[in-house]
Amino acid sequence: MTYGIRLLVFLKEGVLDTQGKTVAASLKGMGYGCLKNLRVGKYIHLDVDAASEAEAAAQVEKMCDDLLVNDIIEEFTIESEAARA
Amino acid sequence: MTYGIRLLVFLKEGVLDTQGKTVAASLKGMGYGCLKNLRVGKYIHLDVDAASEAEAAAQVEKMCDDLLVNDIIEEFTIESEAARA
Repeated sequence: MTYGIRLLVFLKEGVLDTQGKTVAASLKGMGYGCLKNLRVGKYIHLDVDAASEAEAAAQVEKMCDDLLVNDIIEEFTIESEAARA
Repeated sequence: MTYGIRLLVFLKEGVLDTQGKTVAASLKGMGYGCLKNLRVGKYIHLDVDAASEAEAAAQVEKMCDDLLVNDIIEEFTIESEAARA
């Protein structure tokens, strides 16, 4: 079974998000005073073949450790989507 | 009220995702044969002051048109999180 997994990777609190600050400053300069905070991260969508949703998520967690996430400055969340046959 | 909005921006189908292809090739080279497909995009988290959740989402949609999304090659989804007083 193929499982759709969403991986959201973003900088840890306390790590300067220069990209986020720049985008926020531009939006405020365009008149978006309603914007209180903005953080930019990576969104990775993976289709993974696995016996179960939990196993698919575990595989993605290993991929994070191996390659996708720099755990010194980044944190991540894994979310599953509906399985596809 | 401050609303947490999640914005996921990714390349349209048919647009070559070179970053996604490179990451997928690396993971497969590391033995992740279970990986069927991988797409890389942007995850932007915004805190927006608004009278309602719908208004906050509408503001973010305008920000997409003005700055955050290149609608020639990108598409996006907006998701709301719980409101915070």
